[in-house]
Amino acid sequence: MVKALFFDVFGTLVDWRTSVARESALTLAPLGYTLDWLAFAESWRNRYQPAMEEVRSGARAYVKLDVLHRENLVKILREFSVHDLPDSTISELSLRAWRKLDAWPDVVEGLRRLRGKALIAPVSNGNISLMADLARHNGVCWDAILGADIAQDYKTNARVYDAACAAFDLRPEECAMVAAHTRDLQAAAARGLKTIHIARPDENGPGRGEARPSGPVDIAARDLLALADILPA
Amino acid sequence: MVKALFFDVFGTLVDWRTSVARESALTLAPLGYTLDWLAFAESWRNRYQPAMEEVRSGARAYVKLDVLHRENLVKILREFSVHDLPDSTISELSLRAWRKLDAWPDVVEGLRRLRGKALIAPVSNGNISLMADLARHNGVCWDAILGADIAQDYKTNARVYDAACAAFDLRPEECAMVAAHTRDLQAAAARGLKTIHIARPDENGPGRGEARPSGPVDIAARDLLALADILPA
Repeated sequence: MVKALFFDVFGTLVDWRTSVARESALTLAPLGYTLDWLAFAESWRNRYQPAMEEVRSGARAYVKLDVLHRENLVKILREFSVHDLPDSTISELSLRAWRKLDAWPDVVEGLRRLRGKALIAPVSNGNISLMADLARHNGVCWDAILGADIAQDYKTNARVYDAACAAFDLRPEECAMVAAHTRDLQAAAARGLKTIHIARPDENGPGRGEARPSGPVDIAARDLLALADILPA
Repeated sequence: MVKALFFDVFGTLVDWRTSVARESALTLAPLGYTLDWLAFAESWRNRYQPAMEEVRSGARAYVKLDVLHRENLVKILREFSVHDLPDSTISELSLRAWRKLDAWPDVVEGLRRLRGKALIAPVSNGNISLMADLARHNGVCWDAILGADIAQDYKTNARVYDAACAAFDLRPEECAMVAAHTRDLQAAAARGLKTIHIARPDENGPGRGEARPSGPVDIAARDLLALADILPA
């Protein structure tokens, strides 16, 4: 059916919420801070879309997500009354927190099986170095790392989907975007890609995630193992 | 010592000469052609540098190596008096011949071991889709595919080395270019990268390859296994 599967990463493949909370606690708790770590992770993530919107709108030139993550961390540290953290600690936490994200339980085996059926690549807003570290952390082997860095733009802008198809020399209808976010899939569909929704009902906390797509998609699957079961080779 | 190893591919990791000869024969012999297949492969390869030079010099906008390979194939088919091949056969041969290149015997195990010591990525003039297919053909797992496509330029232009370091957020001196071609290494050194020469004495035929570097390099190794033995983790 499709020759390439493009994966959203944050939320779809990895559990950013509990991982960022854990890594933030690992860095800040030894310094004496006792925060609501899950709330800290959610606040950090909440600043993700507005920061990218500046780039998407053209108001700001493309910068890597690592840069936006660090800027956003500076803001939420203030919100959570964490003051006087050395710059080097802020940089280290900013990088580390988003590079130690654990995959959902179905992902490693699911990707291994799906790679037997199609080319697989992350088409994420995360930069190449971040994606490479995440792949190592979880033991995933990609065919290539596509996404924001090669497009120099952020999803859901068209250029990111177009650049991914072009990198693999494929027509959009030969590619499928795989995501737990209907908005991402709608943007991919607008560029002619097939769409596959993965249920991540607890992405933003228990019951706070997309258990099913909120609009039409080509396939909706419970997880990557279920997708591997039904996807033709 | 270094955090990332960047690999030249054609000649350094894969034996393009006998592989292109084999794949050309597989396509053209059943159509009744009996050519000197190794000479055919060498002629095809000989047009590689002049074609890229048009892009490097700025005379031509960046196009993928796949495009140059096809244009060069059309020219050498004429040279070898192969006429009236259907366009679809030319396209298929052009793609196929450079996607079925076999790795030298030390490469798969060597890269596996080196990946335990540093990030590894091809920094080749081959495009992303070509590199992805070659990795699958040989069973290699890269951390990312860097090189010409992400730089939109060809080695030995500086931009290709610079873009590779930038993709991994590393300073040039934290990266090493690994190649069987001294010219590639000299260009990398000019951008501040470390240099590692790999001996491929038979790249262009028996005794027609670089058995040793023709200029100063940081490390010269017999093959990737020898490099893995001596490179600090």
